[in-house]
Amino acid sequence: MRFDEAYQGNVFIKSHQNFEESEAVLYGMPMDWTVSFRPGSRFGPARIREVSVGLEEYSAYLDRELEEVKYYDAGDIPLPFGNAQRSLDMIEDFVGQILAADKFPLGMGGEHLVTWPVIRAMYKKYPDLAIIHMDAHTDLRENYEGEPLSHSTPIRKAAELIGPQNVFSFGIRSGMKEEFQWAKEVGMYIAKFEVLEPLKEILPKLAGRPVYVTIDIDVLDPAHAPGTGTVDAGGITSRELLASIHEIAKSDIKVVGADLVEVAPIYDPSEQTANTASKLLREMILGWVQKK
Amino acid sequence: MRFDEAYQGNVFIKSHQNFEESEAVLYGMPMDWTVSFRPGSRFGPARIREVSVGLEEYSAYLDRELEEVKYYDAGDIPLPFGNAQRSLDMIEDFVGQILAADKFPLGMGGEHLVTWPVIRAMYKKYPDLAIIHMDAHTDLRENYEGEPLSHSTPIRKAAELIGPQNVFSFGIRSGMKEEFQWAKEVGMYIAKFEVLEPLKEILPKLAGRPVYVTIDIDVLDPAHAPGTGTVDAGGITSRELLASIHEIAKSDIKVVGADLVEVAPIYDPSEQTANTASKLLREMILGWVQKK
Amino acid sequence: MRFDEAYQGNVFIKSHQNFEESEAVLYGMPMDWTVSFRPGSRFGPARIREVSVGLEEYSAYLDRELEEVKYYDAGDIPLPFGNAQRSLDMIEDFVGQILAADKFPLGMGGEHLVTWPVIRAMYKKYPDLAIIHMDAHTDLRENYEGEPLSHSTPIRKAAELIGPQNVFSFGIRSGMKEEFQWAKEVGMYIAKFEVLEPLKEILPKLAGRPVYVTIDIDVLDPAHAPGTGTVDAGGITSRELLASIHEIAKSDIKVVGADLVEVAPIYDPSEQTANTASKLLREMILGWVQKK
Amino acid sequence: MRFDEAYQGNVFIKSHQNFEESEAVLYGMPMDWTVSFRPGSRFGPARIREVSVGLEEYSAYLDRELEEVKYYDAGDIPLPFGNAQRSLDMIEDFVGQILAADKFPLGMGGEHLVTWPVIRAMYKKYPDLAIIHMDAHTDLRENYEGEPLSHSTPIRKAAELIGPQNVFSFGIRSGMKEEFQWAKEVGMYIAKFEVLEPLKEILPKLAGRPVYVTIDIDVLDPAHAPGTGTVDAGGITSRELLASIHEIAKSDIKVVGADLVEVAPIYDPSEQTANTASKLLREMILGWVQKK
Amino acid sequence: MRFDEAYQGNVFIKSHQNFEESEAVLYGMPMDWTVSFRPGSRFGPARIREVSVGLEEYSAYLDRELEEVKYYDAGDIPLPFGNAQRSLDMIEDFVGQILAADKFPLGMGGEHLVTWPVIRAMYKKYPDLAIIHMDAHTDLRENYEGEPLSHSTPIRKAAELIGPQNVFSFGIRSGMKEEFQWAKEVGMYIAKFEVLEPLKEILPKLAGRPVYVTIDIDVLDPAHAPGTGTVDAGGITSRELLASIHEIAKSDIKVVGADLVEVAPIYDPSEQTANTASKLLREMILGWVQKK
Amino acid sequence: MRFDEAYQGNVFIKSHQNFEESEAVLYGMPMDWTVSFRPGSRFGPARIREVSVGLEEYSAYLDRELEEVKYYDAGDIPLPFGNAQRSLDMIEDFVGQILAADKFPLGMGGEHLVTWPVIRAMYKKYPDLAIIHMDAHTDLRENYEGEPLSHSTPIRKAAELIGPQNVFSFGIRSGMKEEFQWAKEVGMYIAKFEVLEPLKEILPKLAGRPVYVTIDIDVLDPAHAPGTGTVDAGGITSRELLASIHEIAKSDIKVVGADLVEVAPIYDPSEQTANTASKLLREMILGWVQKK
Repeated sequence: MRFDEAYQGNVFIKSHQNFEESEAVLYGMPMDWTVSFRPGSRFGPARIREVSVGLEEYSAYLDRELEEVKYYDAGDIPLPFGNAQRSLDMIEDFVGQILAADKFPLGMGGEHLVTWPVIRAMYKKYPDLAIIHMDAHTDLRENYEGEPLSHSTPIRKAAELIGPQNVFSFGIRSGMKEEFQWAKEVGMYIAKFEVLEPLKEILPKLAGRPVYVTIDIDVLDPAHAPGTGTVDAGGITSRELLASIHEIAKSDIKVVGADLVEVAPIYDPSEQTANTASKLLREMILGWVQKK
Repeated sequence: MRFDEAYQGNVFIKSHQNFEESEAVLYGMPMDWTVSFRPGSRFGPARIREVSVGLEEYSAYLDRELEEVKYYDAGDIPLPFGNAQRSLDMIEDFVGQILAADKFPLGMGGEHLVTWPVIRAMYKKYPDLAIIHMDAHTDLRENYEGEPLSHSTPIRKAAELIGPQNVFSFGIRSGMKEEFQWAKEVGMYIAKFEVLEPLKEILPKLAGRPVYVTIDIDVLDPAHAPGTGTVDAGGITSRELLASIHEIAKSDIKVVGADLVEVAPIYDPSEQTANTASKLLREMILGWVQKK
Repeated sequence: MRFDEAYQGNVFIKSHQNFEESEAVLYGMPMDWTVSFRPGSRFGPARIREVSVGLEEYSAYLDRELEEVKYYDAGDIPLPFGNAQRSLDMIEDFVGQILAADKFPLGMGGEHLVTWPVIRAMYKKYPDLAIIHMDAHTDLRENYEGEPLSHSTPIRKAAELIGPQNVFSFGIRSGMKEEFQWAKEVGMYIAKFEVLEPLKEILPKLAGRPVYVTIDIDVLDPAHAPGTGTVDAGGITSRELLASIHEIAKSDIKVVGADLVEVAPIYDPSEQTANTASKLLREMILGWVQKK
Repeated sequence: MRFDEAYQGNVFIKSHQNFEESEAVLYGMPMDWTVSFRPGSRFGPARIREVSVGLEEYSAYLDRELEEVKYYDAGDIPLPFGNAQRSLDMIEDFVGQILAADKFPLGMGGEHLVTWPVIRAMYKKYPDLAIIHMDAHTDLRENYEGEPLSHSTPIRKAAELIGPQNVFSFGIRSGMKEEFQWAKEVGMYIAKFEVLEPLKEILPKLAGRPVYVTIDIDVLDPAHAPGTGTVDAGGITSRELLASIHEIAKSDIKVVGADLVEVAPIYDPSEQTANTASKLLREMILGWVQKK
Repeated sequence: MRFDEAYQGNVFIKSHQNFEESEAVLYGMPMDWTVSFRPGSRFGPARIREVSVGLEEYSAYLDRELEEVKYYDAGDIPLPFGNAQRSLDMIEDFVGQILAADKFPLGMGGEHLVTWPVIRAMYKKYPDLAIIHMDAHTDLRENYEGEPLSHSTPIRKAAELIGPQNVFSFGIRSGMKEEFQWAKEVGMYIAKFEVLEPLKEILPKLAGRPVYVTIDIDVLDPAHAPGTGTVDAGGITSRELLASIHEIAKSDIKVVGADLVEVAPIYDPSEQTANTASKLLREMILGWVQKK
Repeated sequence: MRFDEAYQGNVFIKSHQNFEESEAVLYGMPMDWTVSFRPGSRFGPARIREVSVGLEEYSAYLDRELEEVKYYDAGDIPLPFGNAQRSLDMIEDFVGQILAADKFPLGMGGEHLVTWPVIRAMYKKYPDLAIIHMDAHTDLRENYEGEPLSHSTPIRKAAELIGPQNVFSFGIRSGMKEEFQWAKEVGMYIAKFEVLEPLKEILPKLAGRPVYVTIDIDVLDPAHAPGTGTVDAGGITSRELLASIHEIAKSDIKVVGADLVEVAPIYDPSEQTANTASKLLREMILGWVQKK
């Protein structure tokens, strides 16, 4: 054994050691400073990596193994605490570099606002980008208590950037009346309460297009993901979410990037949410990365 | 800002400040002293109020907002610890006053025995009262270890008061053999295991009648409500419970009062049960209060 | 009251006091020393007994009461810490004695490896034994990091002993690629993801045969059983598992022994997993013991 | 191995199997139904036994081993839930039988009210009984909200029975003004805040007398015993409590019975309080039982 | 019973109902948005009030009862989430009104930055104000990552406002080298590690002066206060902190206001920190308010 | 920002990036497979690193900053699960390489058995090695249930290797009678219960000698370190342990290596033990590494 064989910190299971050779880049965005109710998601990426050592490397769903995909775990972006604007700038820059190297960016939150700068970077590269958004919440506020940089606003911002007709939300069960109204007025698609069935209808319409998929873990029912900031009863099961990931994998869309956000370990005493997140990431890697 | 603008303690989100103008009155019944297995529900009302600040004020299910209903949070009734009889008397008196003021009583338990004095008060005003009861347990014991004032007896007492043919239980999956036999003999309705489908059959039969709805949070599966005294596997999902609340809201019955009981924070480390309870209460307010 | 009326330690509710008169013997196998990821199941049997006092004695599913079956709680086998081989020998010897006395062995784990010596004992008495196995994991590894005595190997060993065509696995959602391939090659039955529906197909084929049923609590989704070593999203509900137990009870197979393993209290802060396990055991006792 | 070698439920480590041959009898009093603030101590005895398996059998303080004392673990007295009077009667009867057999009664609570019937039984046998009481609270109320059977009253009742000049309280830091005044008026000894130093002064005065020692675990600071119903900052360390037990062991008093009460596992997530209680019991057994 | 007898939300035990008649005003400052490591103190005031119902109303230390002091619980100031500047402005205004009414302000945090606007308000009224500061941390940074409004800066700002020679810090065991150097250079007093003994030396020098006392709960060792954001080993005991409060009560200084900050319930699973905080507040009320 | 600026996994705060330039090497030994009672320490090193981000970089005790010492965090040694012998061989080899490079090895456990191979490596380089051992337990068993590789045996093995007169144990409060007797017979030093005072006596006698210091976190009282496998009441405070580390730093001995073992996160819900461990490591780095 030599020193470089020692376990170099905490990385996602089976990560590839070499950035250049990798097809995908996994990275953490440990930010939760615009969260109003129960913060704590900044510790999500570290815990997901920690429990990933308990994962099987083979997916019985997709009949593929993690070693069939090369992904590099770039660690957490060193975001400056409390400075939302600079944090977002760093994320956009970071993802821009991943895209410049023609790799698949796979992010772990952190609060959902981190998706906003990722979309900015994606959109520069893919002007015909569409977004698939799975979440309990609309995240369509124009601002939160006057603050436009809030965990309640990222999808609104994204929709305004790439056009609301290119954003497709699924599983939504919470939001302000105004948010739903705005979506209706501007022609943005929202599937309330359900994910899998409406997804089956939408996917064919997106065939061939580059799509970014953002999953807020709270799209799951609190029974399946208690470890998140804003639990909201009436969500989908982890079985339905897994099936949705697989449905996308089987479709003709071209997934060009993705994230999974809002895992908060402090509300997860039995670590079930972190474990579930690590399994979801495995399926996302195995099902989506090869799409390009 | 003036002093009366400060947040006056811990009230349910968007509570109306004025009792007289309110259509409904929310109140806590912090009692758990007849609980045999795992006490702790006396702290339920306080925690439900605390987490209610995380609720959206709009229901995407009912397309209504909390500000469309005026409800006053009267706080917790100051029940004398350990004195079951006097506690029940105080509850009956308290609810009697709400009814005298022609308002909708919406109670939070506390153990399920608190429903018994509420029914006594309701029955005085509504002699043709029917009860819809959602629970994992029959609660039909004549007594518990010789004690008639027990959390295992409230529905029996209620059935004996208003007539067992006027009581409709749903979701029941636990009880003594004698309890099920008694219900059968006296013609009381029990839907085992399920809530939504049998409810759809019963509601039309109750059209036009005044109905009190009592929900024991343990009608939910432990996955959806771990924070309660007697968890019992095999229950319904929070999605089914939400749909049942909405089914009642759409029906032609006249809900005249309701309660939600048995939330026990000490078994709820991630606060998911308290959060779910606060969402259920929002839907009950939005869906039922306007029925009168 | 006399001294022998005092509660003699911690036994499963309604256990019969006399071994000779009993039809079934409940026993704990407090072993977790080959567990790779999160140990702790050695404390499972004690906690299941502790919470069993909260159980109703009547099953509303089977319309039977615990007092209709005589079962003796033999306590935990005093397994020598860290010595896997000697522990397994003790279990085999212990179960052999139960079988010699013509009683139904009902074991509580501990890790899943404890099932292996039980099968050895069962097979000596029942040469035409079949196994029904409910689990998230295949448990078909030949060895784990070179060690054949591992919690990942018991079903492989059992299949090699009694013939892979006599082993029927249900609910499997995790394993190595090689494990699934081995099962396919040797003709062992594996129902992926589902339990109840495939079980309905298999049970008639086993009519009249002696069957041992082993249930790993992690066949349940983490929402329903967070308190176990290797949680794995996408599992079945406790409702489906209860229905599966009842399906077996109604079938024409002859259940000759059973176990429930892998409950780990340290990951179960609200005790929901232990409570669920105690209810499952009640249904197994009421549904299966009388089959002989 | 034979069946009777299996671990017969949950007993305190190294308990002797035979009641007749034993010098001391350990027993649980799982009652908490008069507790006003945070119940849960009814589960204390079971958890203390469970963690006792982690204890060393040798005391480095007293240079003695557990096998040098024969003590029988009689299990928990099956107290009828919610019925305080009948529970107390059963305890008095139970302890009376231990004393009739000339054995040392060593009780585990449960709430502190359980000490009251024990004192009644002790006093019948030892008319010159004195009491050493270690606690954060005076427990000298005449009644609690009108109820004389309360966890706040046991020492008052004991003092009125055996004479207040025979009761010696240590470590007291909470109580009503009236309680302290009453003690002063009737000449009952109270050492505020401290235990060890005042104990050193009192012990010589009790030389030769039969003494019952009752320890409420909350005499410890919350840092040392978070797992109890009413934590109260400013208490003593476990080191001081151990030294106090040893000081009694070295003294010339004749300890004739003892108890340790108010361990509540639900507030003890790391099990430190239960572990500390089991060590305290070991020292009490090794230091006090041989005194007779 | 009338409606206004019901428990009006969650207030500190024995609060006086009338603002005008009160001598002191208790208020919460639920802000934690500049916290870098583990946020959560925004929920501190609510939990402290909730557990205060378990407090004795009498202090055995001071021989006084809560009813001897009239204090009004004004609830939590409704601070706008995430907006540090506006939050601080609201606090300053709020405390200014308390002082204008000639009452004693007693604040509950929230993060320590909330003390900064309080000091601004105090200083306007008391130009010769001195500060006693008990904390594990210096809190003397000029800014944190460039941001002057941070939980690491309040004492620096206060010192610059009222003059560093008027600030006296006790119990300090953490900080940057530069912070200690700055204190030394400007002549600010810092007692490292200890509180009680250095306090005894300083108090006589402050005789007659108006003093504001700010206590960060993390001055306590983590053993005594695990429920806070930045635990730091090597702190004082709750006994020493109580004694320090009493030392101030006995001194000749004139306490004109005080706060207790940084209780974070999410890290306090057994609620010991919240309970300790509520006892500290009781002693502060009983010992300090009458000083004016 | 470039990729190599991203946070590369989970390392101890302020670790130096370059092995060659470093004076010390920090490494984890994530092994707990010989633990009899409550395993879980294998996750200790990862959690200590995670919480180290909350540490101040300056020591107010030693007036030194972390950047004054160059230490490389080599990550965790990838120990093969369940294989004690091979794990120990890997540790010995690993530490041998650190010593060959003339660097200070600073290990994090894991269970205490990991110290045994470290001592073997140290002893090869330093034939006149002495050991300072701080622990609640003697760890002097010859074997545990017949197994010589156990967490109860490392100090015995070390004493037999380097000579018992060269081993100095402090703070010991638990062990078998035989262990204490053996130490006495062979002339090994044991300071029962205390650490700081006996250490002051021993240190001058070791002046100039190379010394390895091994600290089991359970030398602390459970109040100060609940998050460990075998909590044992009556231990020292974190303040005394810090002072002991500083006493060694001031002495004339030559610390040549050290470890801190037995932190188990699963018993540490508020993370206080991990936080304390990270502070102890900071002081060990600042106080001891420069000694060579």
